[in-house]
Amino acid sequence: MSNEVKPESLSLCPLGTAAAPEQELLCIFGTGDLGRSLGQRLLQTGYRVVYGSRRPHSCGPLPERAQVMSHAAAAQSANLVFICIHRENYDFLETLAPELKGKVLVDVSNNVEKNLYPEANAEYLQRLIPGAHVVKAFNTLSAWALQNGPSDANRQVYLCGNNAEAKQAVSVVATKLGFTVLDRGSVSAAKELEDFPLQLFPEWRLPLRLAVGLTAFFFFYLLIRDIISVYIKEKKDISFRIMVSLANKVFPIVSLIMLSLCYLPGVIAAFLQLYRGTKYKRFPDWLDRWMLCRKQLGLLALGFAFLHVLYTLIIPIRYYVRFRLSVRENRTPEFDTTMAWRTDSYYSVGILGFGLYLLLGITSLPSVSNALSWREFSFIQSKLGHVTLFFCTFHTYLYGWDKFLRASSYKWYTPPGYMLCLVLPSVVLVLKLLLLLPCVDRSLTRIRQGWERTNPDDDSRKSLNIQ
Amino acid sequence: MSNEVKPESLSLCPLGTAAAPEQELLCIFGTGDLGRSLGQRLLQTGYRVVYGSRRPHSCGPLPERAQVMSHAAAAQSANLVFICIHRENYDFLETLAPELKGKVLVDVSNNVEKNLYPEANAEYLQRLIPGAHVVKAFNTLSAWALQNGPSDANRQVYLCGNNAEAKQAVSVVATKLGFTVLDRGSVSAAKELEDFPLQLFPEWRLPLRLAVGLTAFFFFYLLIRDIISVYIKEKKDISFRIMVSLANKVFPIVSLIMLSLCYLPGVIAAFLQLYRGTKYKRFPDWLDRWMLCRKQLGLLALGFAFLHVLYTLIIPIRYYVRFRLSVRENRTPEFDTTMAWRTDSYYSVGILGFGLYLLLGITSLPSVSNALSWREFSFIQSKLGHVTLFFCTFHTYLYGWDKFLRASSYKWYTPPGYMLCLVLPSVVLVLKLLLLLPCVDRSLTRIRQGWERTNPDDDSRKSLNIQ
Amino acid sequence: MSNEVKPESLSLCPLGTAAAPEQELLCIFGTGDLGRSLGQRLLQTGYRVVYGSRRPHSCGPLPERAQVMSHAAAAQSANLVFICIHRENYDFLETLAPELKGKVLVDVSNNVEKNLYPEANAEYLQRLIPGAHVVKAFNTLSAWALQNGPSDANRQVYLCGNNAEAKQAVSVVATKLGFTVLDRGSVSAAKELEDFPLQLFPEWRLPLRLAVGLTAFFFFYLLIRDIISVYIKEKKDISFRIMVSLANKVFPIVSLIMLSLCYLPGVIAAFLQLYRGTKYKRFPDWLDRWMLCRKQLGLLALGFAFLHVLYTLIIPIRYYVRFRLSVRENRTPEFDTTMAWRTDSYYSVGILGFGLYLLLGITSLPSVSNALSWREFSFIQSKLGHVTLFFCTFHTYLYGWDKFLRASSYKWYTPPGYMLCLVLPSVVLVLKLLLLLPCVDRSLTRIRQGWERTNPDDDSRKSLNIQ
Repeated sequence: MSNEVKPESLSLCPLGTAAAPEQELLCIFGTGDLGRSLGQRLLQTGYRVVYGSRRPHSCGPLPERAQVMSHAAAAQSANLVFICIHRENYDFLETLAPELKGKVLVDVSNNVEKNLYPEANAEYLQRLIPGAHVVKAFNTLSAWALQNGPSDANRQVYLCGNNAEAKQAVSVVATKLGFTVLDRGSVSAAKELEDFPLQLFPEWRLPLRLAVGLTAFFFFYLLIRDIISVYIKEKKDISFRIMVSLANKVFPIVSLIMLSLCYLPGVIAAFLQLYRGTKYKRFPDWLDRWMLCRKQLGLLALGFAFLHVLYTLIIPIRYYVRFRLSVRENRTPEFDTTMAWRTDSYYSVGILGFGLYLLLGITSLPSVSNALSWREFSFIQSKLGHVTLFFCTFHTYLYGWDKFLRASSYKWYTPPGYMLCLVLPSVVLVLKLLLLLPCVDRSLTRIRQGWERTNPDDDSRKSLNIQ
Repeated sequence: MSNEVKPESLSLCPLGTAAAPEQELLCIFGTGDLGRSLGQRLLQTGYRVVYGSRRPHSCGPLPERAQVMSHAAAAQSANLVFICIHRENYDFLETLAPELKGKVLVDVSNNVEKNLYPEANAEYLQRLIPGAHVVKAFNTLSAWALQNGPSDANRQVYLCGNNAEAKQAVSVVATKLGFTVLDRGSVSAAKELEDFPLQLFPEWRLPLRLAVGLTAFFFFYLLIRDIISVYIKEKKDISFRIMVSLANKVFPIVSLIMLSLCYLPGVIAAFLQLYRGTKYKRFPDWLDRWMLCRKQLGLLALGFAFLHVLYTLIIPIRYYVRFRLSVRENRTPEFDTTMAWRTDSYYSVGILGFGLYLLLGITSLPSVSNALSWREFSFIQSKLGHVTLFFCTFHTYLYGWDKFLRASSYKWYTPPGYMLCLVLPSVVLVLKLLLLLPCVDRSLTRIRQGWERTNPDDDSRKSLNIQ
Repeated sequence: MSNEVKPESLSLCPLGTAAAPEQELLCIFGTGDLGRSLGQRLLQTGYRVVYGSRRPHSCGPLPERAQVMSHAAAAQSANLVFICIHRENYDFLETLAPELKGKVLVDVSNNVEKNLYPEANAEYLQRLIPGAHVVKAFNTLSAWALQNGPSDANRQVYLCGNNAEAKQAVSVVATKLGFTVLDRGSVSAAKELEDFPLQLFPEWRLPLRLAVGLTAFFFFYLLIRDIISVYIKEKKDISFRIMVSLANKVFPIVSLIMLSLCYLPGVIAAFLQLYRGTKYKRFPDWLDRWMLCRKQLGLLALGFAFLHVLYTLIIPIRYYVRFRLSVRENRTPEFDTTMAWRTDSYYSVGILGFGLYLLLGITSLPSVSNALSWREFSFIQSKLGHVTLFFCTFHTYLYGWDKFLRASSYKWYTPPGYMLCLVLPSVVLVLKLLLLLPCVDRSLTRIRQGWERTNPDDDSRKSLNIQ
């Protein structure tokens, strides 16, 4: 670079020598919150900034050291123009088409609602000024995030555009500002990018629906089986049990099923890799999508387990339980050591399972999981996860104990809820055990280290593949 | 600096081509922990570093590739000098005034106590060397943070100084090191910046005081009403109830009040915006300050709720409760289904409320809230927050049930604690309901999207305003 | 910028002007996952990238704008070559030795197991091409982390190598990519760096072993003392108590001991500093190692405390407890106010202690502790930590109450478990109290602010030392 710094530039700027040789000029249209924050950050990063404004002499407070010009003059002075204007006001840009020809226009706009307009803002802008290179970027960031600097979660800048060089230029600016760029392709992806800030927990949708569905199913199943059946047969109203007893049956059932749904796809994937003899083939879409929402499934399962714990712990202070205790005192039963072993084991295993459950939940906090190496994370989520599943399943088996074989358990020929919910976790645990057999484990490990049953003949596969 | 980059330096350094063209020289006075860490980081970022030392030949371990000179020589060779020296030793800098003339001096110092000196360190430095441009910066970072690189929370570098170009030069260095710069104005802000590392939870002060005040008030109110009154009237000493029963009344009361105080300012702000017809007017100061400590209010409320849960759960293992249970067995009461419904609902609603409460707490962890988009965060904290408030309020109403109308509840003409604490949350919920009425909601939404009742005629308002 | 860039450079690259002046060319060998991700990020940061491939015309999808050449041609065109190839395929690089002479080779490889090869990959590479400057770097990052950008926890890049200029060149690239560089010395450190991604919780090993050891000891101690002794003396089988009662004795004991082990080293360090009269002398190794695992000790202690809480809360729903309650109703005991005070205080202090314990745990989450200033963190972990220790110790003393003096407590001449576990925390608290005496506290504070009993005559000590 030193060959570009001329002697006279030194005398012009004796102080800011650090920035001197690379003071590039960027243009910002719009002097609102976002425009101001962006300009401030660009200036701090060492860029020079010129604002384009309709009234250059009365446009409110702007960052020190920034210039203000008319739109046309500002556009001509820089190659990269940030359009920090509402889409509603884009039309006036059409008149600037000659000045904006060949320039990179960065569209940072968002809409207040989805599908407000038929085409994405960036596509609209590109149509208005066909001679410019429109790049959609920065729209997922708020003025607040720009001003306070990137943090782990909003460090990523998505961009898209038709011109590779234009995208490259915007990438470099974004990287200098401290952001990480994720390229999403051509300007036709702009619609998707503009929907990002309007989405509400997209990755939680499927797990949530599943949780609601399972809860509803088991609620009505147990309502009919345990409460309505009693009312029909014995004309006894025990509907008050809905609030705590029934809830405390539904919650652990849903929790256990969702926990096993969280580990089932991993097991399926392992068998698929074993069957195919390679890890380089894509999984089917449904499996991919399933694996991507495992974290959410697990956290929801944890939520239900947490409710189960609290509902269990309040049992002794319930009016109903106290009443029953005070009534049945006449009979003096025999102390049954087996019963004591069983119930104590039942509670103990349940508590340890819940403890591990919580540990899994804590390690899935972004800041904790970021601090783990890939190997540590997979140890926790896979090994410890399966141990958790085992504890919780065992807890449920202990609850059932000898009732599995008693005919009285099958009222109306229907099995009780806890039996239904044991099917899935038992299957997952058995399959996982199969995978742990030394011979199976060995070939799976080899496949995951890149070995393929057929001869690999692709250069790219020989090169380093870190997962 | 460019005068040092000679053509032959390129041939000397055939390897470091990446860094070659921009090797600028920065100077550091002081070879202590901070000076060493700073130098290391600057070198890694591609700067060249020269240390100024009193004994250039015996100054302990310094980063590889850094030069060491006398103070005067070091100062002359660079335009930017980091002063990593204790304020107590600043006086010797006065002798270097000629060499430091026109240079940017970065004051990174801190004091061990507030108000140790009448003027800020940076102001003192500026007074000693009036010809230099002093910039206060980096003082909120520790040597440890500098060495290990910026993380989310200590990424921000505050700076202040009188000369804009000097600040700009420091900004660029800070940005290259990976920090985000927040400009705090002229050197008179240095005092404030130097107090930052000495502060202890400044934003928690108000909420904590409130919590202590509320706890004390309700403790004494209930002490007199429930325990001293019994002693005076019946000469019965039930003072042991202070430890658990009384505490378990005070905690939920304080928790509910603080939770509603957390949502009250948002409701007030909404009504203010409706009344003014614009979102562009500043809120009064007290409201601003109140809104800024909502997170702390909510977390303290969660703490009290957590204590309430634990104090409730240990009820059945208390000696007093077991004693009472074993005594009153003679009477055989009638089972009351309404009572069973009521108490079970009471517990159930309480548990669900606490679950949501916890969810709010978890999403306010920095790493979790950073991972949410603005829309998701506001959904959780506003929608789910009001649902939580509703559950907790409903829980308390269920506790009261029919006691609101019974005269016996009003001992000594004073209402019981739970009635007092219901006032505020009920008001918040009613006001929030009003805001949810379609017509009110519609105009509030329009205002928040930037619409104003009067004609906007400011250019800056037309441009993009992302909150 | 446009006015500073010369006309001819504009015509060559009219768009990417931001990147134009510093487009340096870097070379990547290997087109696998990591090679692709790395290339993408380098391009986005403004570098030009050339891939070296065995079949330049059929090597799978590569980032847009990256060139592909034969290995030899690619190596010649750049000064810095990233070797993204499995170690198993390094041998072919030997044939490129002439082209790679004088170049910086960045070894990013990892092995799938520890000690697979006698020498580190980087050392092997250096031996293959002695004329090149091998730098080990980036191996702790995954392709995934490279693509998504650095986050707090995987922001750090460790590097080592023999040539300081080569390391400098790699540092600058890493810093531009947004990483923080930690230099680990010469290439002989490569072995250690290559083991990093294969390690499993190295810093948890010691605390975990301690926890397991303590748990085992107290389990067998109490098993013999409380259960086997009853069996021997009274021929009564109370083995069912292992599951809950015994566990609920072991867990709090281990928790309290580990919590005090967490605060003991700090107290020892303070006394050592007082004795030596300076803070500038290194602590002995064992103390350093102990202090470094305090966080892990504390978190394990919290885990045990959590289990203790859950095991305590399920007491009233245990079959054994309910049975005992229903049996012993005949006797009508006298209500004992002292007993009520004692048990209620016992529970209350325990709950408050657990609440503080949780607070300590939450503030040790990376995202929370990052958000605290050094002063706030030390306030929480030191002041609040000792208060927690006091509460938990007091809780245990209340549990013992008058049993300390009763002979019947010392079955078989052995003290009960809770007495054993009180020794350590009592010692820590007494020592801490000594440190809080005004005269001791004053000299300790002076020492920690840098004061030394002997005259300091080292320049580096006079300079700023921020801890």
